[in-house]
Amino acid sequence: MRALCFRGDGGGPEVATVPDPEPGPGQVLVKVAAAGVCHSDLAVMSVPGEALPFPLPLVLGHEGAGTVAALGAGVTRWQVGDAVAVYGAWGCGLCAACAEGRENYCPRAAGLGIFPPGLGAAGAIAEYLLVDDARHLVPLGDLDPVRAVPLTDAGLTPYHAIKRTLPKLRPGGTAVVIGVGGLGHVGVQLLRALSPATVVALDVSEDKLALAREVGAHETLLSDEHAAVAVRALTDGLGARAVFDFVGAPATVALAGAVAGLDGDIVIAGLGGGRLPVGFGALPYGTTVTTTYWGTRAELIEVLDLARTGAVEVHVETYTLDRAPDAYARLHDGKVHGRAVILPNG
Amino acid sequence: MRALCFRGDGGGPEVATVPDPEPGPGQVLVKVAAAGVCHSDLAVMSVPGEALPFPLPLVLGHEGAGTVAALGAGVTRWQVGDAVAVYGAWGCGLCAACAEGRENYCPRAAGLGIFPPGLGAAGAIAEYLLVDDARHLVPLGDLDPVRAVPLTDAGLTPYHAIKRTLPKLRPGGTAVVIGVGGLGHVGVQLLRALSPATVVALDVSEDKLALAREVGAHETLLSDEHAAVAVRALTDGLGARAVFDFVGAPATVALAGAVAGLDGDIVIAGLGGGRLPVGFGALPYGTTVTTTYWGTRAELIEVLDLARTGAVEVHVETYTLDRAPDAYARLHDGKVHGRAVILPNG
Amino acid sequence: MRALCFRGDGGGPEVATVPDPEPGPGQVLVKVAAAGVCHSDLAVMSVPGEALPFPLPLVLGHEGAGTVAALGAGVTRWQVGDAVAVYGAWGCGLCAACAEGRENYCPRAAGLGIFPPGLGAAGAIAEYLLVDDARHLVPLGDLDPVRAVPLTDAGLTPYHAIKRTLPKLRPGGTAVVIGVGGLGHVGVQLLRALSPATVVALDVSEDKLALAREVGAHETLLSDEHAAVAVRALTDGLGARAVFDFVGAPATVALAGAVAGLDGDIVIAGLGGGRLPVGFGALPYGTTVTTTYWGTRAELIEVLDLARTGAVEVHVETYTLDRAPDAYARLHDGKVHGRAVILPNG
Amino acid sequence: MRALCFRGDGGGPEVATVPDPEPGPGQVLVKVAAAGVCHSDLAVMSVPGEALPFPLPLVLGHEGAGTVAALGAGVTRWQVGDAVAVYGAWGCGLCAACAEGRENYCPRAAGLGIFPPGLGAAGAIAEYLLVDDARHLVPLGDLDPVRAVPLTDAGLTPYHAIKRTLPKLRPGGTAVVIGVGGLGHVGVQLLRALSPATVVALDVSEDKLALAREVGAHETLLSDEHAAVAVRALTDGLGARAVFDFVGAPATVALAGAVAGLDGDIVIAGLGGGRLPVGFGALPYGTTVTTTYWGTRAELIEVLDLARTGAVEVHVETYTLDRAPDAYARLHDGKVHGRAVILPNG
Repeated sequence: MRALCFRGDGGGPEVATVPDPEPGPGQVLVKVAAAGVCHSDLAVMSVPGEALPFPLPLVLGHEGAGTVAALGAGVTRWQVGDAVAVYGAWGCGLCAACAEGRENYCPRAAGLGIFPPGLGAAGAIAEYLLVDDARHLVPLGDLDPVRAVPLTDAGLTPYHAIKRTLPKLRPGGTAVVIGVGGLGHVGVQLLRALSPATVVALDVSEDKLALAREVGAHETLLSDEHAAVAVRALTDGLGARAVFDFVGAPATVALAGAVAGLDGDIVIAGLGGGRLPVGFGALPYGTTVTTTYWGTRAELIEVLDLARTGAVEVHVETYTLDRAPDAYARLHDGKVHGRAVILPNG
Repeated sequence: MRALCFRGDGGGPEVATVPDPEPGPGQVLVKVAAAGVCHSDLAVMSVPGEALPFPLPLVLGHEGAGTVAALGAGVTRWQVGDAVAVYGAWGCGLCAACAEGRENYCPRAAGLGIFPPGLGAAGAIAEYLLVDDARHLVPLGDLDPVRAVPLTDAGLTPYHAIKRTLPKLRPGGTAVVIGVGGLGHVGVQLLRALSPATVVALDVSEDKLALAREVGAHETLLSDEHAAVAVRALTDGLGARAVFDFVGAPATVALAGAVAGLDGDIVIAGLGGGRLPVGFGALPYGTTVTTTYWGTRAELIEVLDLARTGAVEVHVETYTLDRAPDAYARLHDGKVHGRAVILPNG
Repeated sequence: MRALCFRGDGGGPEVATVPDPEPGPGQVLVKVAAAGVCHSDLAVMSVPGEALPFPLPLVLGHEGAGTVAALGAGVTRWQVGDAVAVYGAWGCGLCAACAEGRENYCPRAAGLGIFPPGLGAAGAIAEYLLVDDARHLVPLGDLDPVRAVPLTDAGLTPYHAIKRTLPKLRPGGTAVVIGVGGLGHVGVQLLRALSPATVVALDVSEDKLALAREVGAHETLLSDEHAAVAVRALTDGLGARAVFDFVGAPATVALAGAVAGLDGDIVIAGLGGGRLPVGFGALPYGTTVTTTYWGTRAELIEVLDLARTGAVEVHVETYTLDRAPDAYARLHDGKVHGRAVILPNG
Repeated sequence: MRALCFRGDGGGPEVATVPDPEPGPGQVLVKVAAAGVCHSDLAVMSVPGEALPFPLPLVLGHEGAGTVAALGAGVTRWQVGDAVAVYGAWGCGLCAACAEGRENYCPRAAGLGIFPPGLGAAGAIAEYLLVDDARHLVPLGDLDPVRAVPLTDAGLTPYHAIKRTLPKLRPGGTAVVIGVGGLGHVGVQLLRALSPATVVALDVSEDKLALAREVGAHETLLSDEHAAVAVRALTDGLGARAVFDFVGAPATVALAGAVAGLDGDIVIAGLGGGRLPVGFGALPYGTTVTTTYWGTRAELIEVLDLARTGAVEVHVETYTLDRAPDAYARLHDGKVHGRAVILPNG
């Protein structure tokens, strides 16, 4: 079959022919209708091939949706033709974290050589995706796979980050979203759907602020040197109960720290390399800082259910498999509007 | 192989030869070292065979522990010889509840014909047990299977009931345990290990009260017409923050209601047929009443981890497979001390 | 001053002149702008006077809002003229429950002779209300006291009931509201603002169902003998994750039990005298049943903050103090639309 | 009366005569039986007097216990002679945080000029302590004030830190305590009483490790360059679910980061000036880092209730008021064993 491969030889991703996968016992083969393109793929491709903990070439793509094409032996809960989304944070399945579906925090996965599709295992930007275990599929129902596929990461990651903070997000409180890109513009929608908090979005781009308002932000502010003071003013001096930094750069994590209030939550969900120091005097008392990773399987079910109500929509632009390298080039150059989605069988 | 079968023909359970099970893809065959005998088996056997939602004869036993004897195709996380306990509350594996390991509340299981071992599927009182999915095993480690096997139900059920109420069980608060039998004497130990609450145990038998004190109850009281007043006196008139009724008879659920305090939790975990009416005037404001069922897979991991610390021990009496019918007879007559355990290969 | 008094002599409430209250140390005198009329006042007035645990005559009204008129010695956090709402679930202030602001579950209040205004202490349907402790006031800000005053009970009671169940109310889940009256029509709005669940409202009146749709219910159903089946059908057979019965009559609590799903929450918040029996076989496993009472002080702050966003509005009809007896007569006859509010200084 | 005063003139604390306090409306005068000496007093005294946000001289002491000596007007819930402990984290009493008793996170206190006793308001190391509001007292019951008084800070601070992390502290999990001094040796006891986790204590002193074992630590390790590897080994490579750093120095916060596991909690509760950077790659995914401050009023009630069960004991050494300056000198020199307690009326 044809797939988008990263070879680690200094070149970019390229379309190549790879062996057709076949599902073993307990596995499922999915015919890919749509696969998402993500910044974290660029991060992987920036690492020298020999430094990666998995073999190359790698088929890219950790967001996938499509239909069940073939069932491995023993798979009884799915049928060929079922519309599915792929849960990508594959864990060992047996440890205490996995037993609660928190496979995104499985402590054994890496040691067992278990990697997500497109981030170690063969990924979704291909005609077919081999899913290692039938439980890693979630029913898609009548959702459009093209518009739904980004929810498996660009939706699930902010959903997980936000869900952890919901006890803080009460009426009268403020949630700050830093960065209104692929994850952030979903985060704004999720905050509106899941909480009664006032949502303040910050970005360096006026276009992104316009998008934030369009998808429901109550207030938007340029993320400049006045931003922290402006957020304080909007919150009667109290600061935010929750801050979601979807950029994660040094400047944005510092801003996150500057706008958080007492006993608040700061979640760093962007890979920008920033680090926020925590200690007495550095942040208000009681404020927690954390980096979250992807989400749980139950949360993927929930975020798809939420999409069914119309509460969350992802802006997408689509590409054929042949044009997938262009999608990555545009992503690298900051030119993608919303999320780029590849249609490998389109 | 030999197994203890319930035929539904009016007779009791009897040892018979049944076909040797073989593990299909994703399944695991366990050589049973120990299998527990439970009141709920008596409840099943009291139902006319034709009224049961599964075919007979049924191999009994929903508590099982042993070693992995054979692996179905595709099972990679276990090895032959691994010591394991069986998680019995089998669910569909795919729904939102199962995705969090809350298979005990899977809404789809019954409709899909999925039943726990010994309660619809072939059970553990046999030389071998076929486990439908490798994820339904939990590592036993160096725990003695004979002493550990009751933890898979008689331990897990109170663990689940107690864990739900932990936010209520603060220092200065009181937890009441009604019925110090197979579940209750584990419940007392779990409350001591998991919470700082004062534990008050009630039973109609002085012997059981002595057992309660032995395993850690701070106070014990005869469960008679003075019990409710006595509990109120022990709690400065406030009543208990949590009440666990491991009997569930009409008299005990009424007692549970009478000793609960404002904003408390009452958990009915015994099958005695009692019903507690909830409404204004019937119970203190804010008090919740619930019936719990078994526990989650993660909780089974936790309860076994707790047993490893020595914090919980189950009193057991053991039987060969040939004497298993005697164990049920003694259980029926209330003569079992602690939990009866069958050694099918002993 | 003039006030609406219940004398317990067989007659209805009547306007009378009572002594002017003066604030003692730590107390606050509020000039009442608006006071709500509630079914629970009718319940109190149905009790023979000598059976009540407090002296008569009683000034009615447990929902109050207005402006600070005078400060008792030592009150420093309020100023004369401040717009305030009154928190009515007065507790002892010192016990563990009160220390968390859960004064609505104070176990000591009744024993100390502490009663809410209008339910034992002099109430809000008067020119002035004496508030026993400055901490029982909440800033009203620029909210209209007439529209906001019902939030202190008809808003706070459903808010508290709903907040307890929020962990169950995830995307894809269903919340059922039984009874779209004074509390229920607020409950529908709160569910929409606080949760992503699908909201299904039931009532015996088509008018009330129209109101439910107007304030945001996704689905409405007549509360008749087909209702339980209809709710099951709407939820793919799963039942509701949360059921709020704002009527609490025998028929409605039975309906609540019939529509709840596995591991769901049923909250009985209506005083209709119904009782729902809990036990194995009576309800799905894991389903909790509780009666809640009013709400916490922090929750009152939250519900007023929510009102400031426009997310919740109460339909009111207003009366002068002289016409207050008419308001109770209309309430008794089921003729009040939304909530009746008295303007004692209007 | 006589009191220990800090003048901010370059000298240490000294005993002086100050005006007798008198309780105003709502206030309570406490005859001090015992007052604790704390490192944070040294921190205050290291600040130039003119840089402090409150007037000098300051009567020291933020841990106080004794008996009610006089009641201000309007105080009805206490009686002269009642044994009480003082809750010191005084807040405004009216905001959303205070409404839940989380006065330790009151965002308005500092702006209103509200400071804790001994940290801005007149403190407990004096014959009498003026308590600003009757609700800031908690019943002491029959607890010995000398042994109980450190619980109001050295007990409450770790209690609050630990309580926030309890959902993480399950059987099979590990809690790490760094620093077995005044707070840490209480923290070890609290962890044993409140959770089933394995408790590992680290310190640079073998004496402190011996103390840790004495009060219940399962494992103890020298806090040296091998400590992180050793903790990993003790936890099967998983790291700790919760880490409590009661030192907070640069080296200890780094150690805290090195021993935390996936989805764990790190709480920095020591004032040692360290800062732990949070960002992708710096810590395991999902791990939260926070600094906590003191505790809530309800938590003080709980920690005293826990002390009544014998589950927590503080090692104390006692001083007369005249020798109070010596206590601070010894504390400064690291010579205090456990907690120094002043007996101002002793």
